[in-house]
Amino acid sequence: MKTIETCLTPEMLKYHDLSNKTVVVIDIFRATSCIVTALAHGVVSIIPVATVEEAKVLQSEGYLTAAERHGSKVEGFDLDNSPFSYLNPALKDKTIGLTTSNGTQAIHAAQEAGAYQVLIGSFLNISALENYLTQKAEGICLLCAGWKGKVNLEDSFFAGAMLERFLGNFTSINDDCALAYATYLAGKDNPLRFLESSAHYHRLETLGNHADITFCLQQGIYHNVPILQGNTLVNV
Amino acid sequence: MKTIETCLTPEMLKYHDLSNKTVVVIDIFRATSCIVTALAHGVVSIIPVATVEEAKVLQSEGYLTAAERHGSKVEGFDLDNSPFSYLNPALKDKTIGLTTSNGTQAIHAAQEAGAYQVLIGSFLNISALENYLTQKAEGICLLCAGWKGKVNLEDSFFAGAMLERFLGNFTSINDDCALAYATYLAGKDNPLRFLESSAHYHRLETLGNHADITFCLQQGIYHNVPILQGNTLVNV
Repeated sequence: MKTIETCLTPEMLKYHDLSNKTVVVIDIFRATSCIVTALAHGVVSIIPVATVEEAKVLQSEGYLTAAERHGSKVEGFDLDNSPFSYLNPALKDKTIGLTTSNGTQAIHAAQEAGAYQVLIGSFLNISALENYLTQKAEGICLLCAGWKGKVNLEDSFFAGAMLERFLGNFTSINDDCALAYATYLAGKDNPLRFLESSAHYHRLETLGNHADITFCLQQGIYHNVPILQGNTLVNV
Repeated sequence: MKTIETCLTPEMLKYHDLSNKTVVVIDIFRATSCIVTALAHGVVSIIPVATVEEAKVLQSEGYLTAAERHGSKVEGFDLDNSPFSYLNPALKDKTIGLTTSNGTQAIHAAQEAGAYQVLIGSFLNISALENYLTQKAEGICLLCAGWKGKVNLEDSFFAGAMLERFLGNFTSINDDCALAYATYLAGKDNPLRFLESSAHYHRLETLGNHADITFCLQQGIYHNVPILQGNTLVNV
């Protein structure tokens, strides 16, 4: 039987056996939503790196680079962590180096933990993800990026939205799934209102990023599934 | 304003500042339910220890001792981790040494993390806890013991039940609260049925402990609030 499990933060990844598992990295506000948007709009690949220093090296090698820390763009880089920045036609066929507070860390954590495959998940590509996983995955791990090691509401909520689509065909094998699914049920009728209570929503609002939040909550507007090949994210 | 936060497993305690916080340790299946039951029925104090070796030392010093690992009693000890074992009138006025897989570890983790106060929570004493905390606590941390580091459903569910009683008077300060509360809402109408899907429920059922589960889900039948004084649990 196919299995599905949820990991509420990368801190808990050590309790998951990822061999033969397809890991879906989730950082809906905003890294994974940006990655999906960029690759949907013609960016050819994204190199996710864990540190600002690594992003600087990529910049020195001539790559366009994006860096975010604490919700804001890091001084000196080309792009920030807003999905609107990736709608720019000038980015077509480019490769972008990217580092963010949580999402790119989670991608690396999944890779280091020996994941069979690493995909990028967001509401923007949720239907494409569902189709791909239903056809290709034997075991799924929904990895919430969280916020600096902590559990967060929005990524747990998204994991629950994925679970609703899979619980008929995949067996849930850990209790994190029940928490994520309950969280989705509690908020699905009005996601924006529900997520207003989350810590990161407040952080983004304070930084003036309300439009990013509503953008990231659009369901299934893109049809690409980003996958990690070596150290680079490309569309499947 | 008074605050309330939830910590879904002791692994995440490092993200909580516990100075001035009253920590409620939660391991409803079954350690904290046993502790409440024992102290409600005349046991005078309980010494929670992290390891089986420490429990053996207490036994060699003449204490009655209880030890549980993987859901079962450890060979050679006097008592197991079933609340029914603590209804015995012969235990009146005794002090008991106790080690369990998760609950006693969480008690020590809270103490080591610098908690201002450590209380013991379960459905059995939920109303007494509510009264005590409403009157005495300035900040509350609901610490779920989980299962060997992982998040579990039943302790998260109980944290949600506590949150329902406090969200009017205390401000929730982390996203774990939203997950726990959603979990409670999803299962409150039929806790037994809801918790059937949890990993530990299956473990206890397999070991023949169904009666323990229904016992532990009784709400407010005891009126004591166990508190850690030095290294010993006594009633407030």
